[in-house]
Amino acid sequence: MHTAGFRFEVSARDGAARTALLTTTRAVVETPAFMPVGTQATVKSQTPEEVARTGARLILANTYHLWLRPGAETVARLGGVHRFMGWPHAVLTDSGGYQVFSLAQLRTLDDDGATFRSHLDGSLRRLTPEESIRVQALLGSDIAMVLDECPPGRAERAVIERAMARTTAWAKRCLAAERAPGQALFGIVQGATHIDLRLAHLDAIAAMPFDGVALGGFSVGEPIAEMQSLVGEIAPKMPADRPRYLMGVGTPYDLLAAIGAGIDLFDCVLPTRNARNGQALTWTGRVNLKQARHKEDAAPLDPRCDCSVCTTHSRSYLRHLFNAREMLGPRLVTEHNLHFYGALVARAREAIRAGSYAAYARETTERMRAGDEVGPKDRATAED
Amino acid sequence: MHTAGFRFEVSARDGAARTALLTTTRAVVETPAFMPVGTQATVKSQTPEEVARTGARLILANTYHLWLRPGAETVARLGGVHRFMGWPHAVLTDSGGYQVFSLAQLRTLDDDGATFRSHLDGSLRRLTPEESIRVQALLGSDIAMVLDECPPGRAERAVIERAMARTTAWAKRCLAAERAPGQALFGIVQGATHIDLRLAHLDAIAAMPFDGVALGGFSVGEPIAEMQSLVGEIAPKMPADRPRYLMGVGTPYDLLAAIGAGIDLFDCVLPTRNARNGQALTWTGRVNLKQARHKEDAAPLDPRCDCSVCTTHSRSYLRHLFNAREMLGPRLVTEHNLHFYGALVARAREAIRAGSYAAYARETTERMRAGDEVGPKDRATAED
Repeated sequence: MHTAGFRFEVSARDGAARTALLTTTRAVVETPAFMPVGTQATVKSQTPEEVARTGARLILANTYHLWLRPGAETVARLGGVHRFMGWPHAVLTDSGGYQVFSLAQLRTLDDDGATFRSHLDGSLRRLTPEESIRVQALLGSDIAMVLDECPPGRAERAVIERAMARTTAWAKRCLAAERAPGQALFGIVQGATHIDLRLAHLDAIAAMPFDGVALGGFSVGEPIAEMQSLVGEIAPKMPADRPRYLMGVGTPYDLLAAIGAGIDLFDCVLPTRNARNGQALTWTGRVNLKQARHKEDAAPLDPRCDCSVCTTHSRSYLRHLFNAREMLGPRLVTEHNLHFYGALVARAREAIRAGSYAAYARETTERMRAGDEVGPKDRATAED
Repeated sequence: MHTAGFRFEVSARDGAARTALLTTTRAVVETPAFMPVGTQATVKSQTPEEVARTGARLILANTYHLWLRPGAETVARLGGVHRFMGWPHAVLTDSGGYQVFSLAQLRTLDDDGATFRSHLDGSLRRLTPEESIRVQALLGSDIAMVLDECPPGRAERAVIERAMARTTAWAKRCLAAERAPGQALFGIVQGATHIDLRLAHLDAIAAMPFDGVALGGFSVGEPIAEMQSLVGEIAPKMPADRPRYLMGVGTPYDLLAAIGAGIDLFDCVLPTRNARNGQALTWTGRVNLKQARHKEDAAPLDPRCDCSVCTTHSRSYLRHLFNAREMLGPRLVTEHNLHFYGALVARAREAIRAGSYAAYARETTERMRAGDEVGPKDRATAED
């Protein structure tokens, strides 16, 4: 470990899977852990108290968004991102790069960084490794991420190699930049779906004194089976004494597979975004509240779930809220989905400690697959 | 009192103001009380638990909306509106008439009722006094309202007189229709801004065995000063042994004035609707979160308020949520505004019991007026 106040201690192993305690200056996080996404310093529709009630002690906030609005200096003057949003536990910030590549207009990329126009007001901005770390230091997150280049999912090999080289050079510059006191820094491995490139880049990143190592550039359009297979091969080769973070992934199926391969940290908008579209994740698969079959269903979303939504409200009422376009619908299903993700990783930790992780992952996956409410479109997305 | 299980007992008087206990088969409601509006069986963005935490024990649900979606029979099969929405306390339903007049298309009105097309699917519907009571019985509210005709604010005297006559005839038919067990029924007084018509219609309605008497047809465009003056004259003449309900009113100023005149019950969308537009109601007047002055203001919405929003979040964060169009903004300001309304009536009850209501109302009004953050448009609305 290289940052004072940051620790990672593996406490149990079961095959390639492991449980650990990740300690920052603000929180102790049991891993494997899922980080709810708080893009604009808010996990959409939820209070910090509700997020903590799902078991989460580490959330992700987006540097790009907070940098542009309300501004990193404003957040700093208000005491940093934790105090600003009323979240007393740990925060990981991304580098801002992903949003520059996906949201910003008129982007030009060079070896020094990226120039782009804000998607909010069109103002010209410049993101470099040093600027990313400066902004993350102002936000005051517990864990900062290096600026990386994440090429499109189906890019040519030469493009991917150039992005890897740039990501390595930027990683060094990020390490050299000044961070907030106690702020950890994670490196990011690129290489798309080429296993040889992935392993070569892992060697380069793992050789640097990062507090953790992340896999970037997954969930960008590649087939799910290919991603799961690659993660299964790469994860066990990642440094065992540092946290392993699979960025932007994924479905409950993805989490169970990646935990089995030794991944410790996840973030994904799926539980919160799908909730806003009326899709609940449950122990018996996905529930689509817009389906007519739920119109007079007095049962809860998930009888196996002890969240306050499942103990209070019926599927019929939740369906009514979505039909009537009432804000309470997205809010309640978000609360449930985050509870489900929290329980999914909590039970994974228990199973690892009990030495029964493989059975837990297999049985849970089979039960969910058997119950999934899917239309043709869902099926294609889930399998492709 | 005429309905078994429904009681109204005045416990203290201070001038024309009074406090009382209103008892239904499900709840005991201290009056003066403010009813949060749960139009579609949800107080927008809030859980039932949060609504109860503001002190509310009686909410309003809209018959028209629930009749059309999900349907009164569906609500009945799911156990009635209370169980459907997870609200264990009391519910008052309106008659549906107001929405037929304001929302529905191709409305035709006759002495028997109204024919209209649903604003949702264009289907042809018929609302009569008997149908209104049948639907309210299916919803199973604690308090049902009679179907009335509420003419436009500036209607001619002859139009108002015809609406009064129709409302009287419909009131009798509503009384004759079968209600749910223990369901109380309130009559409604019309007469627009004509004091002689109001008093004549009050005589007609008060003569019938209603469990409570409401003033309808206010807040439909008449000057606020005229409304407050009329209520001041009419309220003390309403039956003293039955609850007096001023429908659809109003601002904190309106509530304080009307409580002083002896009104017991209020409902209004103002605290919930204005919250969604970024306007908070506080003990020092309105706060408009969209104003730039709040950008780096670390103070709470209202330092005098003990709601969880004011004890957790800053004005700067709330402003950020509105700027970023985050759902949590409307949600948190709604929670605060309902707390403020709950506290406003709770302190009114205390002041009445202490014999200091006039001073409480005057000082609170002056403090709010001095601090109101208003633009030219707000000023016109508030004063006009």
